[in-house]
Amino acid sequence: MATSADSLGEHGIIDLLRRHLVLMPNMVVPFGDDVSAVPIGNGEVAVLKTDMLVAKTDVPAKMSLCNAARKAIVMNVSDFASKGVQPIAVLVALGLPKDLATQRAVAEIADGLNAAAREYGAYVIGGDTGETGDLTISIFMYGQAKQNALMLRNGAKSGDILAVTGLFGKSAAGLRLLLDENCVVSSEMRLALESAVLNPHARLVEGLALSKSGCVSASIDSSDGLAWSLYELMHMSGVGFTVETLPVAVEAVAFAEQNGLNVESLALYGGEEYELVLTVNPQKWETAKAAVEAVGGNLIAIGKVTMEKQVILLANGKKRCIEPCGYEHFKAPL
Amino acid sequence: MATSADSLGEHGIIDLLRRHLVLMPNMVVPFGDDVSAVPIGNGEVAVLKTDMLVAKTDVPAKMSLCNAARKAIVMNVSDFASKGVQPIAVLVALGLPKDLATQRAVAEIADGLNAAAREYGAYVIGGDTGETGDLTISIFMYGQAKQNALMLRNGAKSGDILAVTGLFGKSAAGLRLLLDENCVVSSEMRLALESAVLNPHARLVEGLALSKSGCVSASIDSSDGLAWSLYELMHMSGVGFTVETLPVAVEAVAFAEQNGLNVESLALYGGEEYELVLTVNPQKWETAKAAVEAVGGNLIAIGKVTMEKQVILLANGKKRCIEPCGYEHFKAPL
Repeated sequence: MATSADSLGEHGIIDLLRRHLVLMPNMVVPFGDDVSAVPIGNGEVAVLKTDMLVAKTDVPAKMSLCNAARKAIVMNVSDFASKGVQPIAVLVALGLPKDLATQRAVAEIADGLNAAAREYGAYVIGGDTGETGDLTISIFMYGQAKQNALMLRNGAKSGDILAVTGLFGKSAAGLRLLLDENCVVSSEMRLALESAVLNPHARLVEGLALSKSGCVSASIDSSDGLAWSLYELMHMSGVGFTVETLPVAVEAVAFAEQNGLNVESLALYGGEEYELVLTVNPQKWETAKAAVEAVGGNLIAIGKVTMEKQVILLANGKKRCIEPCGYEHFKAPL
Repeated sequence: MATSADSLGEHGIIDLLRRHLVLMPNMVVPFGDDVSAVPIGNGEVAVLKTDMLVAKTDVPAKMSLCNAARKAIVMNVSDFASKGVQPIAVLVALGLPKDLATQRAVAEIADGLNAAAREYGAYVIGGDTGETGDLTISIFMYGQAKQNALMLRNGAKSGDILAVTGLFGKSAAGLRLLLDENCVVSSEMRLALESAVLNPHARLVEGLALSKSGCVSASIDSSDGLAWSLYELMHMSGVGFTVETLPVAVEAVAFAEQNGLNVESLALYGGEEYELVLTVNPQKWETAKAAVEAVGGNLIAIGKVTMEKQVILLANGKKRCIEPCGYEHFKAPL
């Protein structure tokens, strides 16, 4: 009996695909981590990733084609960043609706792809295109790394410090702003919040510095939301988390207050925020923090890794469970 | 002023994209060849390819989801075959319409991907999915090769022998059969012709043997049609061709006769035939032919490489120009 789309969902589809595949023997990165990898000799691996941008679900109406193309690259760079890998080359599979197969639209997409790839040190070196009903930009990213320098999802240990590379909530607030014109907001804050959605940034320099420091026990990006990232780390590392300080951006706090929204939800379940979520042995904390600060970034301790496989928020002296939610294709938005 | 989709076309779009990109310095494979490549040291290159299958244009109604997924892999393997590269790993970006996000449909797609990847010695090691209006399967293929073993499009020399790995016309005939129920055909021939479309095969063992032989001066696959492949080789190598023997399958000849069709058109412009089209120095011909036959394949001489940049068919003692046509997305079918 067929299961309906709503009950299957993006993660259900990927699980189902995986169960039907003969797995490559001795995979150096487990299926389901942020990237895939293939050994190429001398302890090095080829690092591979695909993430697809679908205009219908991933591109707000006010986002330009150039920014949509840029975002498609950033989504993939963020996964590379979370593993500490420099992207080298990009291929693009571009699904174009016929009304976008124009000089102007294609040039704008090309400019966005090129600018974003170059911003992170990579080059677009090939691709394919076909006529589709809606705009889709599937990016294939290639890089090369020392196998033992990869920061996988599965190494978090009880007692490790849980940390992030930035504050959350701006993207979720910005998306609400873009979708609902009744939101209350100053023009300055509108710019900051909308920019978080329209012009996201991947934490590549931070990820590369963290990998080089050798201090990280587990790492993931937060593109499906902070809560989702914590549950993914929980499943892959077999540990739990206590979040002691929710890393919320001041803009998100103000926006939530002005618009009667729950700021915790904005920070935990928003998604499309390309911060890194990672764990560090306490003895290596100062080294890790210094490494990130040396490249102009921040490393913010937000809690601890625990034995029990649950994700707890400690707020106002009370413990409560963080729900395992996040953005998922094929599922109704939150 | 925007150019309309019909005048831009798939190749126009790819050219436009390329003109807006900062090219990677010292690219080992020129942009526009069948694959892309990145040096990884010791004279080796990482070989990368993406080709996207769009159900609306690439999947006839009678093709199962399993065979559509299989075809998406074969399209990419064929490009690897034309360069003489063994595929190692596959990532999939799967655009699924909501009505196909079911257990049964996803399992069928997964089975097709897995079976085809394993058939050619590769593994599916990752992917992504998103909700799209129509089914699209973008394959990202990875392999590794000696740089100097790659059979590029740009090395054909005047005087070389022009050759193919099989006979043409079955796919074009099969596609007509699938689309037009009034075609006249025996049940045995129907099976052979439809199978060429529904269950295509990439010439990987032939490509690997040819690369190993070191005899090939230029090579391309014929997925956009034999005529198109010859023009691509012409542009990239700066030579021309005289086709002396059109390589037509007997089934295509019979089908054309029975249905009042032009057999030359079936063979030259059909496309979606995954043969290799290549050139060989005459002194190395016997070695090349023996190498392909040793792995169970055929190498068929069909003409010569010429100085003049034109593609000529020599038929019944008369020379005429082969038109530069082939299948192209965003353009009306022939």
